[in-house]
Amino acid sequence: MTMPEALRHVYFLSDGTGITAETLGSTLLTQFPHGRFYRTTVPFISTIAKARSIVNEIDQMALRDEAPLVFSTAVDENIRNELAKCKGVLVDLIGAHVPVLEKALHTKASHQAGQAHGLGNALRYQSRMLAVEYAMEHDDGQSLRALEKAEVILIAPSRCGKTPSTMFLALQHGVYAANFPLVDEDFPGNTLPEPLRPYKTKCFGLTSNPMRLSQVRTERRPGSDYASLRQCGIELRSAERMYATHDIPHLNSASMSVEEISAVILERMGLRH
Amino acid sequence: MTMPEALRHVYFLSDGTGITAETLGSTLLTQFPHGRFYRTTVPFISTIAKARSIVNEIDQMALRDEAPLVFSTAVDENIRNELAKCKGVLVDLIGAHVPVLEKALHTKASHQAGQAHGLGNALRYQSRMLAVEYAMEHDDGQSLRALEKAEVILIAPSRCGKTPSTMFLALQHGVYAANFPLVDEDFPGNTLPEPLRPYKTKCFGLTSNPMRLSQVRTERRPGSDYASLRQCGIELRSAERMYATHDIPHLNSASMSVEEISAVILERMGLRH
Repeated sequence: MTMPEALRHVYFLSDGTGITAETLGSTLLTQFPHGRFYRTTVPFISTIAKARSIVNEIDQMALRDEAPLVFSTAVDENIRNELAKCKGVLVDLIGAHVPVLEKALHTKASHQAGQAHGLGNALRYQSRMLAVEYAMEHDDGQSLRALEKAEVILIAPSRCGKTPSTMFLALQHGVYAANFPLVDEDFPGNTLPEPLRPYKTKCFGLTSNPMRLSQVRTERRPGSDYASLRQCGIELRSAERMYATHDIPHLNSASMSVEEISAVILERMGLRH
Repeated sequence: MTMPEALRHVYFLSDGTGITAETLGSTLLTQFPHGRFYRTTVPFISTIAKARSIVNEIDQMALRDEAPLVFSTAVDENIRNELAKCKGVLVDLIGAHVPVLEKALHTKASHQAGQAHGLGNALRYQSRMLAVEYAMEHDDGQSLRALEKAEVILIAPSRCGKTPSTMFLALQHGVYAANFPLVDEDFPGNTLPEPLRPYKTKCFGLTSNPMRLSQVRTERRPGSDYASLRQCGIELRSAERMYATHDIPHLNSASMSVEEISAVILERMGLRH
């Protein structure tokens, strides 16, 4: 593999999926905005042999370039001991904190393989999968059946982020989320669309900025009235008026990620399980 | 708030969404399987005032019970200094590792607020959102248009985990994933279903265990032939034969989470971006 000299190799190692190592490692790297990194994720390091093989790879990198940064969430003590031998700069995201917790909890850690993204609590996992199914069935107002089962109903004009936010609420947080599109016909009179009226307290509104919305819609239907700044402005103002009139909590999604949108919704709707 | 005495209070604190603090904190807690924990997540701690208020809450808990465990991914130095004053057992998931990285990178950390789950790289974020849209449109063989854009096509009998795995691949990893259900009519002759033939190298198969599959299907349609152990066995054996004949990589999803299934698919299909 050839690469520009200035890039620093970064490894995310895990005996699980590697998601936690990637995420926390990446957060730490954002603290060094001038760094340029070449990232490799190695999940499922479940045997000493696999650990040795990756240590070998890291050691060879360390001979050629600056020592790679190595973020590890391996939990098994034997695997961790093996990884600790590498010539990279090891950031042990588990081992560093275990002694503090052992002291606080007056007991030894079990050192079983990590379960952050395993099935974990089977009931909790099942409820997440049922929530995904529910979200698929209730996307974009497709089905108005069983809206009473929704814990939250996201409402917004088209392309404000309803669908991905709904999916994230279901998949990450196990929340039963439906979503309902607001269209031109919903706005005259400034009443809530009829199917939503029984569930007003479950509604959460999304808005955006006209410029941003027009840009997103243009990607989908370039040059359409639907994507025009004027039309976007009208829909957003109408939606905001509807939210205000009916006391529907809402946020502007224009510069927020689905993770952030979902976290705000959980807070505001009291949905942390 | 009243609660059984044996529960230990655990706080997950963050200046972002709190997802990383929850995830890594929970992984660390799985190392103490006999512990019983009462968990509270406090995201978006973006001001000193908010930090002080949560420190107050923790200090009051510490007076009544054993000191709470406090996992923090706060990045801003002023917020971190404030949280450090709490009488809980602080596990600073960022601060603990910054000095090592500063040394390795020969530079000081910027201490800007965390961006693990913010918009981050706008292009990468947008590609994740487009992938979600693609996954929604191509769920369950709904649309066979643009299958050439798929990076992976999950194939399996009903209820083996295609849909949530597809969503997770899109939402977390930004992978264009379609899925296609295998039904009785697909199996005689042991050929690949016609729409999949041009894309054989993109196919990835899921299987399950007959018992597990029958259980999952029974939740959906109790007492049906569809949910019978016999029917599940037939479909799974037929699917496995199809995968073997056509060299389609596959895994048994019966005891795996969508996070694990997705991580395996990324590995086996060479899809880590």
